[in-house]
Formats: sequence, structure tokens, C-alpha cells
Amino acid sequence: MNTNCIFCKIVRGEAPSVKVYEDDDTMAFMDIGPVVKGHTLIIPKAHYERIFDTPPELLQKIIVVVQKVARAVVKGLNADGVNVTQANGRAAGQIVFHIHFHVIPRFETDGALRGWRAGKYESHEEMESFAQKIKSAL
Amino acid sequence: MNTNCIFCKIVRGEAPSVKVYEDDDTMAFMDIGPVVKGHTLIIPKAHYERIFDTPPELLQKIIVVVQKVARAVVKGLNADGVNVTQANGRAAGQIVFHIHFHVIPRFETDGALRGWRAGKYESHEEMESFAQKIKSAL
Repeated sequence: MNTNCIFCKIVRGEAPSVKVYEDDDTMAFMDIGPVVKGHTLIIPKAHYERIFDTPPELLQKIIVVVQKVARAVVKGLNADGVNVTQANGRAAGQIVFHIHFHVIPRFETDGALRGWRAGKYESHEEMESFAQKIKSAL
Repeated sequence: MNTNCIFCKIVRGEAPSVKVYEDDDTMAFMDIGPVVKGHTLIIPKAHYERIFDTPPELLQKIIVVVQKVARAVVKGLNADGVNVTQANGRAAGQIVFHIHFHVIPRFETDGALRGWRAGKYESHEEMESFAQKIKSAL
């Protein structure tokens, strides 16, 4: 637990939230700044900042809750699709440094999350060189 | 396996890919249209379209590989952060209908993925009503 973390405060009931799910290890509640209405956050109750430092067994519990919530968002809100997204580090847009997965309902006409722009590599060799750097760090 | 699925073809070695990781159940390879160079995809070898229909045990295997790759992207590419993202349904931007997780390296100055716009609910009651619909579908 982290004294100043807003999500830890939500877990402890010291800050308000609108919950949709809770078990021993995880909690799901509404994002108050929804990209699309119905946008839900899934967190572990324990405080870990990012995916890198979260125990794998805990990530495995979280992803099953993400799936449950994603199914419920489609069924409950009649959504056409769902984005699951998760940011690590300020450079990735992370604002609250307590790991969280976003489940965002999507509708054909919502116009949300249009920031995706596929780039390209200069050459196959350049792509290979990036892969090599990742592989050697695995 | 799905005859026409490009990711199934990659799994079978019938389509080219630059792999960074492979085990019995999963595979990770470079996205050929990187949002940021080093953008990697993690898939199960078995064909499931979306998070809704993927067996939870398989999702649990995938998320551990996502974590491995996320760590390697930071270490291998010296990235400042990482986005993990996953789309379900055309409305969510899904193009290949074989479930995949994106791991996208992020750098302070990359200017990528700027499409996030937090909205708001008209009232607390409106947020509660969305939560209620999701809860009742869980």
C-alpha cells in the first residue's frame, strides 16, 4: 500500500469510486474521465507501479478479470467492441502509478482513440535489428 | 487453425515474420506497421478471434509473455515506457481477427498515440447507471 496513491485510497475505501467488481486480489471501477462512457479500470489491490514489476501470478489474476469485465461491457452496454489498454511510464501516458488496465467500450460511431498511425521500417534489415535488440534482452 | 488467417500462416511458417519469442502456446513477432519502431505483437498459436472467446488459461500464458516482451523492449531499446494494447472488434480498430496484444515502446519525444481524450459523465447518477449495466452483465 502506498499512502499517497489514489488507487490505494480507493482500495482502502478512503477515496470514492463506483465499483463494478471486487475480489481478494483485484478491483474494477469506473474511470471518471471516460474515453467512452462505460470505460472501466481493473487494478490489483496491492501497489505495483507498472507491468514490469507486477508479479506474473498477479498479472494472471488481473487478465482474467479484464476478460470478465470486457465481456460484461459488451453484454451490458451492447458495445460493438472493446479496447484493452495499459500504460507504463509517463512517456506512455501513465498518470496514476499503480498498474491498471483500461477496458473501453467501443461503438461503430464513437470516433474515439483515433491516434493510431502505423509507421514503417526503412528496410527489412532495420526491422531485424530492432528484433535482435529485443531478443537479446529477453 | 484458420486457413485464411495471416497470423495462423505466420504460426505455420507459411507467411514471413521476424520473431522475437516463441514457446509451445505463444509467439511474439515484429509488427510490420510499427506505431513506434520496436512495436511487437504477442499471439497465441491457437486461433481465437477476441479476448471474449480466448480460454482464460491461455490468456494467462499470453500476459506473462507480454510482460517478458515489455521488459525486453525497455531494456533492449532503452525505451522510456511501454503501451500494452489489444483491440476486439472492428469498432475497436481490430484488423486481424486472431487475438493479439501490442507492446509498443514509448519515448518521451515520440509523439505517438495522442488520440486519448478523457470525457466526462453528465452526473454521478449517469456513471452509476453505466456501472450498474456492467455489473448486472458480469
